[in-house]
Formats: sequence, structure tokens, C-alpha cells
Amino acid sequence: MLPVIYSVVTADTSKLLDRRQQLMGPAYRLFYDVPVHIVRGDGAWLFDADGRKYLDMYNNVPHVGHCHPHVVEAICQQAGTLNTHTRYLHENVVNLADRLTAKLPEELDTAMFCCTGSEANELALRIARTVTGGTGVIVTSFAYHGNTQSIYEISTASIPADELPDYVVTVPAPDCYRGPHRDDDAAEKYAAHMHDAIGLLKSRGVKPAAFVIDTIVSSSGVVAPPPGYLRQAAQIVRNAGALFIADEVQAGFGRTGRNFWGFEADDLTPDVVTVGKPMGNGHPIAGIVTRRDLAAEFSEHGHYFNTFGGNPVSCAAAIAVLDVLDNENLQQNALEVGEHLVDGLWNLAERHDCIGDVRGSGLFLAVELVTDRELRTPASELTNRVVNDLRDRGLLTGAIGPDANILKLRPPLVLSKDGADYALNILEDTLC
Amino acid sequence: MLPVIYSVVTADTSKLLDRRQQLMGPAYRLFYDVPVHIVRGDGAWLFDADGRKYLDMYNNVPHVGHCHPHVVEAICQQAGTLNTHTRYLHENVVNLADRLTAKLPEELDTAMFCCTGSEANELALRIARTVTGGTGVIVTSFAYHGNTQSIYEISTASIPADELPDYVVTVPAPDCYRGPHRDDDAAEKYAAHMHDAIGLLKSRGVKPAAFVIDTIVSSSGVVAPPPGYLRQAAQIVRNAGALFIADEVQAGFGRTGRNFWGFEADDLTPDVVTVGKPMGNGHPIAGIVTRRDLAAEFSEHGHYFNTFGGNPVSCAAAIAVLDVLDNENLQQNALEVGEHLVDGLWNLAERHDCIGDVRGSGLFLAVELVTDRELRTPASELTNRVVNDLRDRGLLTGAIGPDANILKLRPPLVLSKDGADYALNILEDTLC
Repeated sequence: MLPVIYSVVTADTSKLLDRRQQLMGPAYRLFYDVPVHIVRGDGAWLFDADGRKYLDMYNNVPHVGHCHPHVVEAICQQAGTLNTHTRYLHENVVNLADRLTAKLPEELDTAMFCCTGSEANELALRIARTVTGGTGVIVTSFAYHGNTQSIYEISTASIPADELPDYVVTVPAPDCYRGPHRDDDAAEKYAAHMHDAIGLLKSRGVKPAAFVIDTIVSSSGVVAPPPGYLRQAAQIVRNAGALFIADEVQAGFGRTGRNFWGFEADDLTPDVVTVGKPMGNGHPIAGIVTRRDLAAEFSEHGHYFNTFGGNPVSCAAAIAVLDVLDNENLQQNALEVGEHLVDGLWNLAERHDCIGDVRGSGLFLAVELVTDRELRTPASELTNRVVNDLRDRGLLTGAIGPDANILKLRPPLVLSKDGADYALNILEDTLC
Repeated sequence: MLPVIYSVVTADTSKLLDRRQQLMGPAYRLFYDVPVHIVRGDGAWLFDADGRKYLDMYNNVPHVGHCHPHVVEAICQQAGTLNTHTRYLHENVVNLADRLTAKLPEELDTAMFCCTGSEANELALRIARTVTGGTGVIVTSFAYHGNTQSIYEISTASIPADELPDYVVTVPAPDCYRGPHRDDDAAEKYAAHMHDAIGLLKSRGVKPAAFVIDTIVSSSGVVAPPPGYLRQAAQIVRNAGALFIADEVQAGFGRTGRNFWGFEADDLTPDVVTVGKPMGNGHPIAGIVTRRDLAAEFSEHGHYFNTFGGNPVSCAAAIAVLDVLDNENLQQNALEVGEHLVDGLWNLAERHDCIGDVRGSGLFLAVELVTDRELRTPASELTNRVVNDLRDRGLLTGAIGPDANILKLRPPLVLSKDGADYALNILEDTLC
């Protein structure tokens, strides 16, 4: 068993904490009962101010590993050469558009760039509202799509149900462990809720513009939709004249192992795909990819410019990430290490009744903790304790889901099988 | 006279242009009749793919000069060490909050970070709407504040007047050259329009949340408000229970020479200041600074997290920019070179009747071109020709204002007097 020595706060860290609260206000939260003061990253590992080592099982942003030298080199080289905007011609943004669209179905041939997932979803919604003439948005319950006003309004995890604007309606997250439909016909039944949502919008006099879904439904607890759900849902919303927007900000870029994009677990082509978080390995870059006809119709109602979006440095970072994904075969690694982790987690479940479910795909996994396996009662308090104990033992993760009883395991894709075993050992110790 | 040899497009550039239009769609626009294909930047200079040199008199984002080595070094050093988020403790974000608030009045003591000016204005509006309970926003005519939905809706330069939502009302830009009030009492008269705006909101049953103003009113033509306007306007909107939001995304960070912030040209303290563009010298970082009581009230209604906002690399870039501003005394340089430019421009005006007005502050200047000085008739076509001719002679600028008849001169703050003379010479040749 590993010693629990990690929860000591030094005077320096304590002082930094005070300064932070003073200067950044109370709207900012820190992870863990005892915050971590991280100063260095390398691959899947993080190091705190006292030299203590943590395995990063949480962060999907440093997608190809913290401080990957190829990405750092690309950023440095371009930052020292030129950093301007997309109103001058530059190879990088064009090459990135090329590389990105090449990873998507042929119809999705037009890329646009911004800086954050919120901005990507904002742009996707602006396109949907422009081309459909509608304003209504259908989202899954307990969804998270960003923090700008329009996107905050569809982030049903952040906003109380009775404060949703009348143009936002929710459908149940397609959760086959805890949701209303758990059997073989779950996909069809979950998709059928689209009819209710469209009917509700209609009753309010609102024309639907889009169905927006995080294709791995992360904030609801990584409840990867049952096969057929996305395809059927897309069909229903399209019949109602709305677009299907796949929010790939979390699921994209090979993380799910079997596929490069979350939506590829089903048989459909979205109208708009939004990308972000892992795209620049931490450098702020995001974007959308859509069909040429939709981009063209949008352009008739105005142009698009984002000062930092698509700048040469951000694009160099994103191109470097795509390089590393290919060169180091990281999607395959996500698949193999993910399967190894899932096996190990089910193995743990044999000895720990508190593990109710293990699910997910590749290196986007969830471990649902319960107080009663039959009743599937959420073990929210236990999960909070476990997350903090894991931190104290050198493993960083977090709790998600409406009951905050689900461990989210979403490490950089460079995690090795040894790293996975390290994580499993600490989990074993913590759950004892 | 300099030779006009710059408008040749090579086969390579032409091919890149085709690929760009194919892959990025028609909503993206390029500057100039013949786009420039920039590949390198250094100080106030840009270089194209054929090695041709341009003086950058347009870009305020590379604030301390293109590829400033201190900023590049800060980015490289931190990108190679750690890039995470604000849910772990890190010195950089706290130090940046410290450095930034130190540049502002004492009451503005709380900083929050995001990635773009749009996101900063989004956050400012969310705070204003939360703390006031209102939704109404007053903005100047022909304003630009960003591209996300809520901010696009208050960007009166981008959206037709009859498409404005009922919670957005405009007041005339305080333009003493072309606007309705041009005399000594202009400040008071422009400020009085706030009463009309508040009345209009009231008649629609909308409670005002904020008055948002770019403190140099750039998109209306750099019509720096007459002294007293901002103070009086702030007083009126505050009496109506709304906040005064100073959008310093363009005017901030010493650009106006005499002051570090645009609002400091008047005697007031805003409730929220938003910052962006120049903050990271091109690296995507933005933010807001507000009072602790407003941040605290906002936090009672939810927390704030922005994945990339306030990350250690972005903060390192922003801290480095503040270092360079101090070390190289660039605010003073902006003042001196700006005055030199203004003198030279008025000198040009003696020989060129098309120059109707020269105005602005520091290195944020505007040259208004007219076909008739008495009538102040906008010379829109001439301005377009001039902007393109300047480009062909190696000087980059752009046209602004409702009639696109105003040259915007907004170079990196490292522009020297020699650089200013170079610009004046090219202008002289072009206006001949």
C-alpha cells in the first residue's frame, strides 16, 4: 500500500491560495479538499511544488501528453516567426483545415476556427439558427457545452431546469445504466423523446434549429449512447427541419479508441461537428467543420472573423497534435490501454461492491460508485472521499454525473499499460 | 517615390488562395483586393512569401511588436514546463491577476480570465445581468464587441438596426466630427442620450443591465469621446441601476499614450473592464477586472470555469507583455511617436484636401478622408483605393467607420519615429 503523504500544504502553497482568493474572487473553484499546486507536466504525469508526482487520469486537454516536445517545438517555432490573423493568407490555417476535414466524412468539407469549445458551439448554433430560421435547441439533460450566454443556456448541468429559456428543451441523456430505458430497445426509446421535444417547442411557437449532443455524453456520466440512438435522433430532428450538431469537444481526436470521433460509434454524418479541448494539447484552439452548403448559406448573412481564431501559432499547435496522434499511433494506444483498464476495473469490481458499473470507450472511462448494486443507489459521499483520497495517494481524477458519484478517467492518450496498472493499484488501495 | 511592385500574385499564393476558399468557406474574408501572404514578422514589420517588406500600421494585437523575443521566450519556457487549468493552483494566473489589477483603480481588484474579447464581454454581460437583475444593454451605434451570439447582438456595426433584439438599444457614437453634437457641450448632449435609451428600454418593459462602450469607439472611426462624456454617461446608467462596462479590448495597455486605459481619458472608474487583443501579443488570452462585491454576487449564482482561460502559458505570455511595456517604456513611445505621426498627418493635410480630420490618441489614430472638407462628405471609394494602394506600396492599414472612409492607424507600440516617417512618405506618395 502506498503511503498517504500528499495532503500536506506548505506555507508557500497556503500563501498562494490566499492571494488567489483575494485576486480572482469566489466564482473560481479549485479541485480537491486540499488543492494541488502543480508546477510541471510530462506525458501522463504531473509534479507539484514539493516534487510530489501524480498520475494524471483526468485531463483530456493535454491529449498527446503534457508538454509533448513536438507540439511545444511547433508552438515555439511559429511564435518566433509570425502570429497574425486569418485576414492575411497563411499556409497553417489552410493546412489545418485540410488535415481536419480529411479526418471527417467527405460531406464535412468546410472548417472554421475559433479559440474555445464555447466559441465553437456558439458558431455552430449561429449557423444552425441562420440556415434553419429556427431558434429552438434540443439538448440532453445534465449536458455541458460551454460558458458563454447562449451556450450556458443549453448547458443543462449548469442551469436550473426552471431557468431554461423557452427555446431550450431537454431530452433524457441516453443512460442505459440509470436512465428510464435500459433494455435492447433503449436506442429507439431514447430517440423517440425527440418527438416530445419537438412537440414541446412547437407548442411554444418555437421552430427547432438544432439538436446538440456531446457524443459521449460526458457530464451525465460518460453514458456512451446505445448504438442507433444518434442515427435515429438525427433523422427525427432533420425531419423537423433542424440540424444535428455533434459536440466532439470532449470525445474527439481518437480518445474513444475504436473511432476518431464519438459520433462514429453510430452510423450517421452530423451537419456540424464542433471541436476544441484536445485540439492544441492545451493551446487555445477550437473550431467547427460543416458542409459547404451550410457554410455558404451562413455567409450570405454575414462574414465570420475571430481575432485569434486560426492564427498561425494555434494552427501549428493543432497540426502538431494531429502529427503526434498519427506518428505515435495514439488512437490504437487509447483502445488497448483502455481495454486493459476496463478489464482491471471489472476485476476490482469483483472485490469492491461499491463499483456499480464500468463503462466508456478507449481512454474515456467512467466508474460508477453505488451503495447498493441492485438498487444502483449513487454513492455520492463515498465518491467525494475516493476522489480526495486518490489525490492524496498521487492519482488525479474527478467526480461527474448528476449525483457526482461517477469517477471520470480521461488521461492523456500516452498513458501506458504500466501507468494504467499504477492507477489500478492506487484505486485498489483507496477502495479498501 | 517608391515603386508600386507589390500587387503581383505568384502561382503559389494563388494556389493557397484557392485551397483556402475551398476548405474554409465563403464566410471568411481577406484584406485587400490582392491579399497579402505574410510569412514572417519582426517588430513593426511584416514580410510576405516573396520577401517583400510591409510596415504594419494596422495590427494592435502584436502590441509590443511581432514576435517579441521576451514574449516568445515566456511562451516557450512555460509551454515546455506545464500547461493546465485554473482548477489547480498555479503562480502564473495569480501573478497576472496581481499585475493587471495593479494597473487599475483600487476598487477594481478582482480579475477573471478567458481566451477572447468576445468571451470577456460575454462574462461582463453575464455579471451585469446577474447583479442588476436586468437584461437591457445600451451600446453606441456602429459598435463592435465580438462574435458570440450575445455579443454579436450588441455589435451594432454587424447587425442591421431592425434585427436588434428588444433588449438592445443604441445611443449615438460620441463623434464630434460627424455626429449630431460637435460643440463644447457635446459631452453633455451625447451623455443625455442615455436618458432616451433607458426610457426606450423601460417602454419595452426591459430593465437595463449595462452600458457597454469601447472607450476609444474604434469601429465608429476612433472617435475618442469628448472629456466628460464617459463620466456623465456612467452616472446616468448607474442611476438607472445598470453597470458601466468599459470595453478596453482595443484601447487598453498603453496604446493611447497618455493613459494606460482608454477610460482614463475621463474621470471615472468603470464597474467592469474587459481586456483582450493586445494582452498576450497574439497569444489567445482575455479577461475582465471588476469589483469584489460584483464578483461575489455573481459567484452566488454559479461558478466560472474556462478550460483554457488563465492557463499557465497564456498567463506567462500576458505577464511578459506587461514586462515589455514597462521595460521598453512603450506607453511613452506611443505618446511620442503618436504625436509625431499626428503632426505629420496634419502636415499632409495642408497639401491634400481629401484629409478631412486627423484624430485619436497615442498610436490609435484615424485619418478621415472626404470629398469636400466643408460638407465633410465621406470619400469611401477613395479610401478603398488608398488602402489598396498603400498595401501595394508596402504599408498595411484598413478602412473603418460607417462609411468606410477612415484610415485606421494602429501599429505595434514599438513603431519608431523613423517608421512613422516611412508611413508618412508612403501616404504622401499614395495621396498624390
